[in-house]
Amino acid sequence: MDTNQSANLAGARRDALSQRYGADFIPAAGPWNEVIGHLLSHRSTRGFLPTPLPEGTLETLIAAAQSAATSSNLQTWSVIAVTDPALKKEFATIANNQKHIEECPLFLVWLVDLSRLQRISEDTGVVFEALPWFETFMVAAVDAALAAQNATVAAESFGLANVYIGALRNNPQRVAELLGLPQGVLGVFGHCIGLAKPEAAAEVKPRLPQSVILHHNRYVVGDETKNRAAYDQVLLEFSKRNEMAAGTWTDRLLGRAAKLAGMSGRHQMVGWLRSLGFPLK
Amino acid sequence: MDTNQSANLAGARRDALSQRYGADFIPAAGPWNEVIGHLLSHRSTRGFLPTPLPEGTLETLIAAAQSAATSSNLQTWSVIAVTDPALKKEFATIANNQKHIEECPLFLVWLVDLSRLQRISEDTGVVFEALPWFETFMVAAVDAALAAQNATVAAESFGLANVYIGALRNNPQRVAELLGLPQGVLGVFGHCIGLAKPEAAAEVKPRLPQSVILHHNRYVVGDETKNRAAYDQVLLEFSKRNEMAAGTWTDRLLGRAAKLAGMSGRHQMVGWLRSLGFPLK
Repeated sequence: MDTNQSANLAGARRDALSQRYGADFIPAAGPWNEVIGHLLSHRSTRGFLPTPLPEGTLETLIAAAQSAATSSNLQTWSVIAVTDPALKKEFATIANNQKHIEECPLFLVWLVDLSRLQRISEDTGVVFEALPWFETFMVAAVDAALAAQNATVAAESFGLANVYIGALRNNPQRVAELLGLPQGVLGVFGHCIGLAKPEAAAEVKPRLPQSVILHHNRYVVGDETKNRAAYDQVLLEFSKRNEMAAGTWTDRLLGRAAKLAGMSGRHQMVGWLRSLGFPLK
Repeated sequence: MDTNQSANLAGARRDALSQRYGADFIPAAGPWNEVIGHLLSHRSTRGFLPTPLPEGTLETLIAAAQSAATSSNLQTWSVIAVTDPALKKEFATIANNQKHIEECPLFLVWLVDLSRLQRISEDTGVVFEALPWFETFMVAAVDAALAAQNATVAAESFGLANVYIGALRNNPQRVAELLGLPQGVLGVFGHCIGLAKPEAAAEVKPRLPQSVILHHNRYVVGDETKNRAAYDQVLLEFSKRNEMAAGTWTDRLLGRAAKLAGMSGRHQMVGWLRSLGFPLK
């Protein structure tokens, strides 16, 4: 690498870290490359052009998703590619009227899927004793998330914007009906993918300083209170710059986590999951 | 792009998809680039050189991890970087004696962390009603997985090998003691990172054909039984080529999921989590 390239990389690193943490919380300089720059530039997008994705894009994204690790190669997840406008409209309604679900050309529903193992159990005549336990559900949810994140990285490498839709869990029973899901399958979250509307472009959202979330050999709370206060200011400035309702991180947490109403009914999840065929023993 | 570059890319795509699915199950050709090639080439590695990671690598990996989406920006995960040999030895023991945990220069323990919100609740004097619910635990586990996968992609971009360690959940209470975790924190999985031992190099592991896991607008089982049988053969050949105990996918599932013993005690997870401060209401 020549001196110019090296200087460009150092500049890109500084800019990316400054956007992600704020100029006062840049972590120690480490190695860097274009993939890292690409990961650091992620932002969730909530406005899409109707432009369809190039032929074969879905299959490439799914190949990336399946390349993520999966616990004991169990592959206890599946995914539904939703392009039907009527379905997307239903999902937008479930998710508190998030209109970008209707706009995006591709809406993925990531599934925790224990039904495949159940079918294999029936085909082989062998009871799968692992199926009814909470642990097995958790493995499937984690593996679905690992897969989805690879799809996100892949989509962003093509210049496609995206956003996860956790609010699909506002009504898992209705999602199951709409998609014809068998027992033992949960639509764990949705995922809008497409080209961003120019006006939906957002800055990279700053995160907590690394010292708050990264520990070394032992969990130490340390200066968390002070660093959280500093992060409150970073997010307040971010919200002002991006013309959002101004607020610190703490304000936003209070809005989201302090009242049961912030959960949009999802405190009922255990009962809902049992009705979908997950005993969660 | 000139004709040569284009031909090279098409060749790389064909090779990568053939390794991931077997030559008979290559999905429709879509767009491709180096990031996709990089994602497709993932394999889990279970043998590491002791070579330390270059200065600042950890911080770069964590910056990538924090750049993943997090539900409502709650950031309900943390991570512990374990380099202490005595701790790694303990974790290897917990995880059924996986010696690569001792070998790798960096062992990350990814944490579901609701304790930070609990501390904010105490500081502000506001009860966070969302905390005790199953849904909030699930959000945190999914977000930890999204973050970890970004760290994996980042590590692999530097030529570092890695493997997730779900068996850290064989004894969450002991993990919490070793790391000094507060109530409301779970070591959800471990993660070995380092340079691969040459002899630990493995082929890319084939996955289920896309038609089995990808659905369009509706969940349709379709030709799953036939395609599973074909995949059984693909994995059987893979295991022979890689000098593993020969077995089909179905054989392996039967070994892993048919008997409660395959769970290494993890069917007790709900009780364990309650003792760690997750009511899972």
